[in-house]
Amino acid sequence: MNTPDPEFVYLQLAQRLADAIGSGAFVPGERLPSVRLLAQRERVSIATALATYRHLENRRLVEARPKSGYFVRARPPRLAEPEQPAAKRAPAFVGVNRLVMEILDASQDPKVVALGAACPSSSLFPNSKLQRMLGARTRRRPESFGVYGMATGAESLRHQIAQRAFGYGCRIEPEEVIVTNGCMEALNIALHAVAAPGSVVALESPTYFGVLQIVESLGMKALEIPTSPRTGLSLDALDLATRKPGAVSALVVMPNFSNPLGCLMPDANKKRMVELMAERGIPVIEDDIYGDLHFGERRPKPAKAWDRTGNVLLASSFTKTVAPGLRVGWIAPGRWFPQVSMLKFIATISTAELGQEVIAEFMANGGYDHHLRRLRRAFREQVERMTDAIERHFPPETRVTRPAGGFVLWVELPASVDALELFQAASAKGVSFGPGVIFSPTGRYTHHLRLNCGLPWSDRLETAMRGVGQAARRLAG
Amino acid sequence: MNTPDPEFVYLQLAQRLADAIGSGAFVPGERLPSVRLLAQRERVSIATALATYRHLENRRLVEARPKSGYFVRARPPRLAEPEQPAAKRAPAFVGVNRLVMEILDASQDPKVVALGAACPSSSLFPNSKLQRMLGARTRRRPESFGVYGMATGAESLRHQIAQRAFGYGCRIEPEEVIVTNGCMEALNIALHAVAAPGSVVALESPTYFGVLQIVESLGMKALEIPTSPRTGLSLDALDLATRKPGAVSALVVMPNFSNPLGCLMPDANKKRMVELMAERGIPVIEDDIYGDLHFGERRPKPAKAWDRTGNVLLASSFTKTVAPGLRVGWIAPGRWFPQVSMLKFIATISTAELGQEVIAEFMANGGYDHHLRRLRRAFREQVERMTDAIERHFPPETRVTRPAGGFVLWVELPASVDALELFQAASAKGVSFGPGVIFSPTGRYTHHLRLNCGLPWSDRLETAMRGVGQAARRLAG
Repeated sequence: MNTPDPEFVYLQLAQRLADAIGSGAFVPGERLPSVRLLAQRERVSIATALATYRHLENRRLVEARPKSGYFVRARPPRLAEPEQPAAKRAPAFVGVNRLVMEILDASQDPKVVALGAACPSSSLFPNSKLQRMLGARTRRRPESFGVYGMATGAESLRHQIAQRAFGYGCRIEPEEVIVTNGCMEALNIALHAVAAPGSVVALESPTYFGVLQIVESLGMKALEIPTSPRTGLSLDALDLATRKPGAVSALVVMPNFSNPLGCLMPDANKKRMVELMAERGIPVIEDDIYGDLHFGERRPKPAKAWDRTGNVLLASSFTKTVAPGLRVGWIAPGRWFPQVSMLKFIATISTAELGQEVIAEFMANGGYDHHLRRLRRAFREQVERMTDAIERHFPPETRVTRPAGGFVLWVELPASVDALELFQAASAKGVSFGPGVIFSPTGRYTHHLRLNCGLPWSDRLETAMRGVGQAARRLAG
Repeated sequence: MNTPDPEFVYLQLAQRLADAIGSGAFVPGERLPSVRLLAQRERVSIATALATYRHLENRRLVEARPKSGYFVRARPPRLAEPEQPAAKRAPAFVGVNRLVMEILDASQDPKVVALGAACPSSSLFPNSKLQRMLGARTRRRPESFGVYGMATGAESLRHQIAQRAFGYGCRIEPEEVIVTNGCMEALNIALHAVAAPGSVVALESPTYFGVLQIVESLGMKALEIPTSPRTGLSLDALDLATRKPGAVSALVVMPNFSNPLGCLMPDANKKRMVELMAERGIPVIEDDIYGDLHFGERRPKPAKAWDRTGNVLLASSFTKTVAPGLRVGWIAPGRWFPQVSMLKFIATISTAELGQEVIAEFMANGGYDHHLRRLRRAFREQVERMTDAIERHFPPETRVTRPAGGFVLWVELPASVDALELFQAASAKGVSFGPGVIFSPTGRYTHHLRLNCGLPWSDRLETAMRGVGQAARRLAG
């Protein structure tokens, strides 16, 4: 849109290397040029060479081995990635609520293999550690049951959140953070704060169905912006959609490991997106719930890191990383703090403090970072096992994402397959997944599905995936 | 409105006895006729005689002494009750949000004597018992940290709520209950479910400011219905206001110990209100958060007990009775269950289960009932001490409510006193209270205030009340 950004150099270089790997010039397991050598050969800085490899690592094409350098990953993906959908300009009223509730009801059944909701196995969470910390804390201060707690959340947790945000490039003061009942409450009050009923909200396509439900419940309209499974939201499409002043009232976006695509928006795009939206006076609600679950070495920055005007409302949660059962999320709403804190009070007064204090302690004593390393490895492996099962069992024309973080896969089946029909067939076999239509306000993605990779691999999963794959082949005719 | 209800007989009889006590025909401490004798003399049934005394007990004019009968209370109130405000017909957009936030911020300060928020002392709650139950439960099932929990809440708690509701006259199945993050979330999603932006919501005047904030945040308009400090919402005014079809889209009401008046709506009125609203197709959102905190012997029925069509959405919470810190409330939304459960998901997905399970255990093992007896006694005594302090320190023309339950007092000062000015004066002395204007969408109640009686009596309170009283006398001129 403007002049090409220097950061794009590493993207171009990364693409050339990716092509070389794809063509067989580098074979799986082969060592790649060192960072220094690559920088010399390509006449780029060490930083750019490093950024190139990190990007390829995030794309799961190369892997870093400590003290040995970068290598082509052992098993490069066989199936193609889904393509970025074409633009669709008319905003639409959302109508997916009832279908989502049906699907979630189905996934409540313990007899079902739950590949629907993005919900990891309980065994992956630090339950015993949390239990001991909670026990010690409530013995020390039983009176905490008897007080409401601060409307904006426990000071200890807001402090930890601010400190951690500083580590990944965001300057947030503890006083700018509001603790919420999970990320959903954060997104809900954020959208309620920045836009009015009837207004248009731009969002990724495909996108998390929960956001679509919020948009519908607030009487707003959703405008789908095409989103690449590789680099996220299309900035060209965003530029076009927001040119007319007042056409769009807010943007909801997941630059770090979008749900369901798992893609990572390049830093250059994040910067440009934040600047463009600030210029046009359109608030950005950034959902960073998967930000800590990167497969690459480095925790990516949120777009908020480039926010100079308080126009980005950054929301996240500990639901996917520490404890789904505690329901603790947060939001740093920038210049929208007064409106968001008021709406938080109106929504639920305050968030229960017990869980907040335990999470703060877990962060302060280093337990969180230690746990994250294990968790990220588990999710990356589970995503690989699931991808592998798709390759073995699904129709050969199937496309599948190569997520750079998080723990969901987005699958594009041959166009002849009706994913809702497949959903019924899978349900009959005790398997649930997320049919593509609920990820779009206009019912696109009829032959797509989202798979939860939060469960450790098992024979039960193998059987489930074989069953879904067979049904998909049958429906593909 | 229709033919007089037989239940009114006990109300008429109660009023005659109240007048007799007021005139000195029965003096404080004197024994009243036995139930049997009263029934004989007045030619009413035993049940009616009993209802008469229970009503007077709720009004704090008589007290029951075990095995001795009913007696005139030792210290009958000296100050008059506030009068029911005149009707005001035009619905108004609500504008109290900012003022409320200011007042709540002030009450966060531990150096302040907090008579503002309706918030009991932590020392009144069963903190150690909860701590032990929570500890045992998480040791037994640490994996509960790692699961989301049911969207509608823990089964154990919904079971206990349904069982208890049966005990006070409401047939609610566990499957009809949705657990929420406190009563505020319940009221918010209930109003969101039943009415659209721009529509008119009828509510008590004065009413809880939180409800006014919900109405404002949803873009609705509030219509104040005059409310008597003795019998609650005026049914004549409600009848008038709802005659024109479509004029009013919902009613929010607290028949049991309205906040801030503390009044108890007679059963006959509850029944009539429910029937009238069902007839006119206007959903009733009943806030029963103070229902368990009755000063009389019997737990009053919610209006929901007379609901035959699922038109009443009954909301309550354990925040005022068991643990403010756990933020556990609930709603039984009747025929609005599908909409409310969907909005609950959209608001916060689900409520953290740990606190729910502990409360369920506390109810199941009898701890709750035992604790309630102690808590109700404490609140009744604290309300008396506070009333006494008002009588001693405030201007002689002051009027004060005689609540039948809960733990707040509503005070009407001489009309010359600006309660916001008094609020500033009190703040300067480290005392906060709820100025009357925030209890009305139209800024009525300029010379009124609400006092939290949740704190055990102390010298600090005596000093605070003396200070506020002196300032009030000064402002009264």
